[in-house]
Amino acid sequence: MNRSQLFEQIKKKKSYLCVGLDTDLQKIPKHLLSAADPVFEFNKQIIDATHKYTVAYKPNIAFYEALGPKGWESLQKTLEYIPKDIFTIADAKRGDIGNTSSLYARAFFEQMNFDSITVAPYMGEDSVKPFLDFKNKWVILLAHTSNPGSSDFQLFESNGRKLYEEVIRKSQQWSTPDQLMYVVGATQAEKMQSIRALAPDHFFLVPGIGAQGGDLEMVSKFGMNDHCGLLVNSARAIIYASAEKDFSKRASEEAAKVQQSMEIYLHAFT
Amino acid sequence: MNRSQLFEQIKKKKSYLCVGLDTDLQKIPKHLLSAADPVFEFNKQIIDATHKYTVAYKPNIAFYEALGPKGWESLQKTLEYIPKDIFTIADAKRGDIGNTSSLYARAFFEQMNFDSITVAPYMGEDSVKPFLDFKNKWVILLAHTSNPGSSDFQLFESNGRKLYEEVIRKSQQWSTPDQLMYVVGATQAEKMQSIRALAPDHFFLVPGIGAQGGDLEMVSKFGMNDHCGLLVNSARAIIYASAEKDFSKRASEEAAKVQQSMEIYLHAFT
Repeated sequence: MNRSQLFEQIKKKKSYLCVGLDTDLQKIPKHLLSAADPVFEFNKQIIDATHKYTVAYKPNIAFYEALGPKGWESLQKTLEYIPKDIFTIADAKRGDIGNTSSLYARAFFEQMNFDSITVAPYMGEDSVKPFLDFKNKWVILLAHTSNPGSSDFQLFESNGRKLYEEVIRKSQQWSTPDQLMYVVGATQAEKMQSIRALAPDHFFLVPGIGAQGGDLEMVSKFGMNDHCGLLVNSARAIIYASAEKDFSKRASEEAAKVQQSMEIYLHAFT
Repeated sequence: MNRSQLFEQIKKKKSYLCVGLDTDLQKIPKHLLSAADPVFEFNKQIIDATHKYTVAYKPNIAFYEALGPKGWESLQKTLEYIPKDIFTIADAKRGDIGNTSSLYARAFFEQMNFDSITVAPYMGEDSVKPFLDFKNKWVILLAHTSNPGSSDFQLFESNGRKLYEEVIRKSQQWSTPDQLMYVVGATQAEKMQSIRALAPDHFFLVPGIGAQGGDLEMVSKFGMNDHCGLLVNSARAIIYASAEKDFSKRASEEAAKVQQSMEIYLHAFT
């Protein structure tokens, strides 16, 4: 999916919601455990219930990998089930030497046909570039994450420039906003504003709304650009809104609530 | 496997060779492609041919992931086939928020029973710690890698300290040399010496011998400590020494050659 197609979807659905498919056998409703593939069954019902309000789905690859080969089959079926006009993100945080990153790119872009993958920047340019060789496929590079440990190295500072700022600056030499997004977990207004100034045209994938705390209005106000430029992820608050038989109905209600706020912010801030 | 068991193996085999199982269907001998599981068949014969000279095997996870669910089955069979007195490394370069790293830890330490996993430090402490909750399991943290892009961010410098040095310094607060190793791809003497000074007791996993260039004597002279402290990886130079029917014989010869040099260096430098 290219950038203008993504923006079209955002305008059509009046939403920039990304639903995180962090599907955990220990958390899904018990009645699904007797299905042939409980993970896929859960995802299928969540997708049916939320796709009207959603422009992206983001399976967290760890949850599937932890189940062994069966988990990869559930992931592949899930990906095939997602409507083709919805952007898909492999939240895999990969990144390795060139020939190895090429293989990860093949795994996620060819074997599984994801639109994008999250990539860790530590190993530099040749670890990122192989993912950019695929037309209309995207790298979502970790810039500033929202977890407690994000301050350990991402704030390491050289001549007034923090590491995450250096990642944003340097990586713009490798690609364009048509193939490169950033993970920006900023929950402070000034920080979101300063990161947007560094990368005015890029999409940001913003985690940290919902179970991780955060503030959708602030993120929208200071992070939006004229083609939205935001995908805001919510996982647990939507997919685990209920652990009972009404889980898909509750997920739909939660996603709708977020979409309604987003419709207001899209009107107010673009 | 704990640290003293690993050192015992090194003394017994007079070797600190790690063989990288970067098994690629496009590179293995053609006659294996008719096997039910060509990847496992290749690995099995490589393991049979090299285990006498080897203290560690390091499957590069990307090569298996690129094959989909079948690749994970080949990986699991390979891991079960490796003799139990040989250290195993999942070269996966994972690292994510705490609950997600926990799942990766379960995937590689429980689902597959690897001894260790390579981890990227960008997301900080809570992305690394979940791997350390498993007794006698190891984190091998990326410090200074050997690829061209390693200079992009790893050399980012604050107050005279480079990012990779900060990674080594800070991560020592999270664990001990009994569970933490570093990836050190230094091919210059002074750099290896200065990194050893930062982490005198830790094992280093050193890539870059063989197909990637490098200098085993230099690495050994400046990197070794009194319990060896080195695992030196070689992949292509051994496993693809020949693409014909003699591949396992040639792999054995190449591994033996490396072991013979290592025996000399162990004698000279510890």
